[in-house]
Amino acid sequence: MQNKQIIYTNPPSAGINPSLNGGTFSLQTVSLADKDHLPADKILVRVHYLSLDPAMRQWLTAKRSYIAPVERGAVMRGQSIARVISVGSQLTDSPFQPGDWVLAYSGWQEYALLSSTEIQQIAFPPGGGTPTDALSVLGMTGLTAYFGLLDVGNPRPTDTVVISGAAGATGMVAGQIAKKVRGAKRVVGLAGSQAKCDMLVKELGFDAAINYKDADWREQLKKATPEYIDVFFDNTGGDILDACLARAARNARFVICGAISQYNATKPQGPASFMTVISQRITMKGFIVFDYAKQYGAALQDLSTWLAQGLIKRKETIVPGGLEAAPQALVDLYAGANTGKMMVEVAPVKPAARL
Amino acid sequence: MQNKQIIYTNPPSAGINPSLNGGTFSLQTVSLADKDHLPADKILVRVHYLSLDPAMRQWLTAKRSYIAPVERGAVMRGQSIARVISVGSQLTDSPFQPGDWVLAYSGWQEYALLSSTEIQQIAFPPGGGTPTDALSVLGMTGLTAYFGLLDVGNPRPTDTVVISGAAGATGMVAGQIAKKVRGAKRVVGLAGSQAKCDMLVKELGFDAAINYKDADWREQLKKATPEYIDVFFDNTGGDILDACLARAARNARFVICGAISQYNATKPQGPASFMTVISQRITMKGFIVFDYAKQYGAALQDLSTWLAQGLIKRKETIVPGGLEAAPQALVDLYAGANTGKMMVEVAPVKPAARL
Repeated sequence: MQNKQIIYTNPPSAGINPSLNGGTFSLQTVSLADKDHLPADKILVRVHYLSLDPAMRQWLTAKRSYIAPVERGAVMRGQSIARVISVGSQLTDSPFQPGDWVLAYSGWQEYALLSSTEIQQIAFPPGGGTPTDALSVLGMTGLTAYFGLLDVGNPRPTDTVVISGAAGATGMVAGQIAKKVRGAKRVVGLAGSQAKCDMLVKELGFDAAINYKDADWREQLKKATPEYIDVFFDNTGGDILDACLARAARNARFVICGAISQYNATKPQGPASFMTVISQRITMKGFIVFDYAKQYGAALQDLSTWLAQGLIKRKETIVPGGLEAAPQALVDLYAGANTGKMMVEVAPVKPAARL
Repeated sequence: MQNKQIIYTNPPSAGINPSLNGGTFSLQTVSLADKDHLPADKILVRVHYLSLDPAMRQWLTAKRSYIAPVERGAVMRGQSIARVISVGSQLTDSPFQPGDWVLAYSGWQEYALLSSTEIQQIAFPPGGGTPTDALSVLGMTGLTAYFGLLDVGNPRPTDTVVISGAAGATGMVAGQIAKKVRGAKRVVGLAGSQAKCDMLVKELGFDAAINYKDADWREQLKKATPEYIDVFFDNTGGDILDACLARAARNARFVICGAISQYNATKPQGPASFMTVISQRITMKGFIVFDYAKQYGAALQDLSTWLAQGLIKRKETIVPGGLEAAPQALVDLYAGANTGKMMVEVAPVKPAARL
């Protein structure tokens, strides 16, 4: 049995080079144990959807961070939605059965031989859902929005909340929780196209949305935040963070979730309006969702309920083309090609298999 | 009776121009009511020491801040140590008597006619003190250090604490509280000369001090913080903030008290290492001491006790030359000419008057 893998090969100097010939990654094909001759302590899974995450660029940089960098020559790290093919003979008491949908720490490959701690059963929301929910609203991105918005930002009903990267997987969940669950007075999103902005307002209930590619976006931001910004949930960093600092209300909370505009920069841009941190008594707080692991269960229950109640709507961008499409899709993620969670379809799922 | 005043005249484009002929300020002499013909609701005071504060540059900039800018044509704003000359006839029930030392919101002038809400009695520490303590350890700078370090930074005995502007009025109090009162494991100061660094370690009990003008200061900072930085008390901003972000420990607290390196900049410098805010889960919090006004009394009691116990030592830089010396002294403050609180001696005090 053959298994295709994408290997991290050449550290990028700035942006990722998506070519599989001489670029950041390369493709290799290896032989995999037959499903009837598995190692006794492993589970064989078939990868269907690869998660693409803004943090991936950081994982390729060898510096002190919240997670060790991916080693050169290793399979590229990443979560996926996978299906169990077979279970090793020592693991017959495990809860996993062939056919189960699982969230897998598989990395970028078609198949993976994993230990039982590297996969998790997918819990579906009460009203039904799809396996890919486990990568979006009911996965790390939804959890990131949940803890960042509720624990770090903690918006009140009188607050103006601004979300950058608002049409991205995390941003759109954060904005919907702010508006629909917390009832914030005003929720404003920043996104990179008019179509995304229209979607935020018309479909997801944002009070206003601003296309940061418009020449007058700073002026629009000012008009959209007449009472300044109480909570800023930042996924982008750079100029947008800077402009929001300049619009911060007294005692504002700045949730520093990501900085996608800076991940490819050789020289990152610090926020020039930093001094409003003092004059407006701003609290800026970075967070990593892993620190909330003990509270995932309760959070997923909330998120499932809100999804079932229609308070949160899901959006996905699924890139076809198999495993080989992943490097270019990651580059496209940094260019903002996605609406909602971006995934690569490694192997299609027959309609009947969607739950 | 004649009164000399320094008037805010020309908004500076970047740094303050200290010339009294065409510079940022100008000198004027006005007539003042004789002490026997005072307005009935006013108190006449003689200014002895003007407070010079890093925040003053910001007060000259007309933008949204924690305090309205000084108006052009007005006496330059500032606190002073003054002595009551006479009390208006309506205020005979007030606690103020001729000869009392007071902390006065006088601005930059030799005499001031103030209402009773614009002056405060000076409370001396149990072991005795000098009137100028009310501008340093027992004044706004001491209070700023107290609330910033204890409420925002909140160091624990296992923590490494780093202080920038450590030989300045606020920094030296913050460092001494961290080391002597809180017993932080390691307290490291950054200052602008070898003499200041020696003073911090030998006189004030810092564990290490780094001259940021040394070419290898970043390397020295790394060596001085082998367990990274848990609490950073920042008075300078700029490159030092940036370097400390890169050395932050997980869950570090960054107390954003001031940014003296940036106040004269036409284009402020944002911290390029900002992304460690996410990877190390840093909390950066700006604060303004005025927000703690209700707790001043208790804080001053603590500070007085610590001063009397020798846990905190005081340092002052008193600039001679009268009122006219103030503009140049303010420029010198931004260049780091001071050790501890910087004041201008407007009128000397006879030795016998020192308490």
